[in-house]
Amino acid sequence: NGNDGISIAIDDLFGLHLLFPTCFHRNLIKLSTPTKSETPITKNLLQASLSHFSTANQPPASAQAQPPGLGPTKPHDKPRVVVLGSGWAGCRLMKGLDPKLYDIVCVSPRNHMVFTPLLASTCVGTLEFRSVAEPIARIQPSISSAPGSYFFLANSTVVDTENHEVHCETVTDGTDTLDPWKFKISYDKLVIASGAQASTFGIHGVKEHAIFLREVHHAQEIRRKLLLNLMLSDVPGLPEEEKRRLLHCVVVGGGPTGVEFSGELSDFIRRDVHERYTHVKDYIHVTLIEANEILSSFDDRLRHYAIKHLTKSGVRLVRGIVKDVKPENLVLTDGSKVPYGLLVWSTGVGPSPFVNSLGLPKSPGGR
Amino acid sequence: NGNDGISIAIDDLFGLHLLFPTCFHRNLIKLSTPTKSETPITKNLLQASLSHFSTANQPPASAQAQPPGLGPTKPHDKPRVVVLGSGWAGCRLMKGLDPKLYDIVCVSPRNHMVFTPLLASTCVGTLEFRSVAEPIARIQPSISSAPGSYFFLANSTVVDTENHEVHCETVTDGTDTLDPWKFKISYDKLVIASGAQASTFGIHGVKEHAIFLREVHHAQEIRRKLLLNLMLSDVPGLPEEEKRRLLHCVVVGGGPTGVEFSGELSDFIRRDVHERYTHVKDYIHVTLIEANEILSSFDDRLRHYAIKHLTKSGVRLVRGIVKDVKPENLVLTDGSKVPYGLLVWSTGVGPSPFVNSLGLPKSPGGR
Repeated sequence: NGNDGISIAIDDLFGLHLLFPTCFHRNLIKLSTPTKSETPITKNLLQASLSHFSTANQPPASAQAQPPGLGPTKPHDKPRVVVLGSGWAGCRLMKGLDPKLYDIVCVSPRNHMVFTPLLASTCVGTLEFRSVAEPIARIQPSISSAPGSYFFLANSTVVDTENHEVHCETVTDGTDTLDPWKFKISYDKLVIASGAQASTFGIHGVKEHAIFLREVHHAQEIRRKLLLNLMLSDVPGLPEEEKRRLLHCVVVGGGPTGVEFSGELSDFIRRDVHERYTHVKDYIHVTLIEANEILSSFDDRLRHYAIKHLTKSGVRLVRGIVKDVKPENLVLTDGSKVPYGLLVWSTGVGPSPFVNSLGLPKSPGGR
Repeated sequence: NGNDGISIAIDDLFGLHLLFPTCFHRNLIKLSTPTKSETPITKNLLQASLSHFSTANQPPASAQAQPPGLGPTKPHDKPRVVVLGSGWAGCRLMKGLDPKLYDIVCVSPRNHMVFTPLLASTCVGTLEFRSVAEPIARIQPSISSAPGSYFFLANSTVVDTENHEVHCETVTDGTDTLDPWKFKISYDKLVIASGAQASTFGIHGVKEHAIFLREVHHAQEIRRKLLLNLMLSDVPGLPEEEKRRLLHCVVVGGGPTGVEFSGELSDFIRRDVHERYTHVKDYIHVTLIEANEILSSFDDRLRHYAIKHLTKSGVRLVRGIVKDVKPENLVLTDGSKVPYGLLVWSTGVGPSPFVNSLGLPKSPGGR
């Protein structure tokens, strides 16, 4: 009764979850076990109260006056490992930590790990978004259940190596009415694995008009825009040129991400667009712009193979350097204008402001 | 070669698609069939051109000067059925239309149908979003392939019954750089099935702070906010009261949608939150606010069953009328303030401005 054997699973911010079919209107249609209760409705309604908002059980003001956070561990406590970031490094480390020996605290603006090599495939539906994201609580379950282990959806702003503390601020994207909440966490061991950020080389308009391909929400945005443009380009009377612009997909950066995404896109065009968007199939094109050679860090043979394969798939390879990005076109250093409907920016990564701010020894490249 | 037997499926704006695992980096790692080509890279890159942007093939200016759109069908053409909307009525009708007898044109701001009775289940992960949405092209395939049949992602603004024309405007949400494109469609038969819209009864702040539950993106927003609040409430040092506010889920409106959603939410709390968010499980509560009786259009027995079931599940039923909605609390007509972290508004629907604007006979209630 009330437990109909259906498991509910919910995982993360991006709709990652398991699929369990449920019965139709399961809270309403259960007339096979009717209730005899004749409780008048009004009584039930009036009995309800909002008593849980009473402040009677709050800690005294003095307790709240101390700076919020997790204070230093006591001598008999397990040592606390604080991990900043939830990427490859942070997650691999947390997976290997024994929660019997350590309390694990993860601070990251993202509650899941992204399997980045397959992210490009999710943009065109080859893979589902949830297939490339793994909730941290599934990588290290103790963070959601052990008394001293936590996951905090927050950014770290300062590392105070003197006092063995990290200063953090909650992420509040989307709930703009809420000020970020600041707190401190004392650490016994600190792991800085907060990752890099996409490089724009200071080119104007990149952040505003291009989409990166580093997070699941980037892939979702690319997919949304691609489909929107496919549908918009089909409206009657749209000038030919505008149709071509809407369906011109431009990828800047010929590294693994840009090449992989261009390939996925051309596969998508040759298969799905030709089958499902037959009205506009001859208008869609992919251009990959790279300043030097594509896949420059790879072996020659592989590079030639990729070039041949991309060209054969209809991807236009253009050698050029982007100077400026405007809402509907970008300008190369040779002055040529490239109109686009979708612009994906994948020119590599550099150190984040947080990592730059750390007064610690770094690897070459500032990371 | 280039066709590795993997089907790509992509369906709609909300990430609806089939899952086909793909091989890792499939466009790159295929060294078992290396290419012998020694084409220099530069040649390939320089050969590329943006020639598809030449305007040589455009129709002459005179052709573009005529008002864009689909003109009247000719005597020997199939009659054109124009369907406004992609809800239950419009989709059921299109499904039954024979594309051999009619050209079908659907105009809707949504490229899929939503199976609304199960929408509440997607908010907490019981169901996947794609399980409650069906692409229109799958309901009536001819709209994406037949020469005279189309789906237009657009809103209809005016019905000109005199000239048998509908005036439309493309939807441009998310691509704000694009002005809406206006066009006209001549119809032989017109089906107005554009649906109703959520009622706010003119209460201030509803549109800004509450979430409706009528579209897939509403369900996504609810889920996102619920999970965000669960994570935010776990940060160290947050005052008790703020924690309770963040995790107070308030549903306004005790119709089928509100009752179903409250039930789903309490199931989610009793199962998933208790298991996966153990740190904050005692802070989360659901309140259902209704001005009259819940499920007032249903049978007494069913109503009593629902009340008993909801109460038992921990849902607080409150009889009250909302006067004002602020970012973090709402005010009832009796003056009491109800703090909330998530507010879902499901007080029924009324006619849309478009339907109001039509000078046609309507059913009682203005629809």
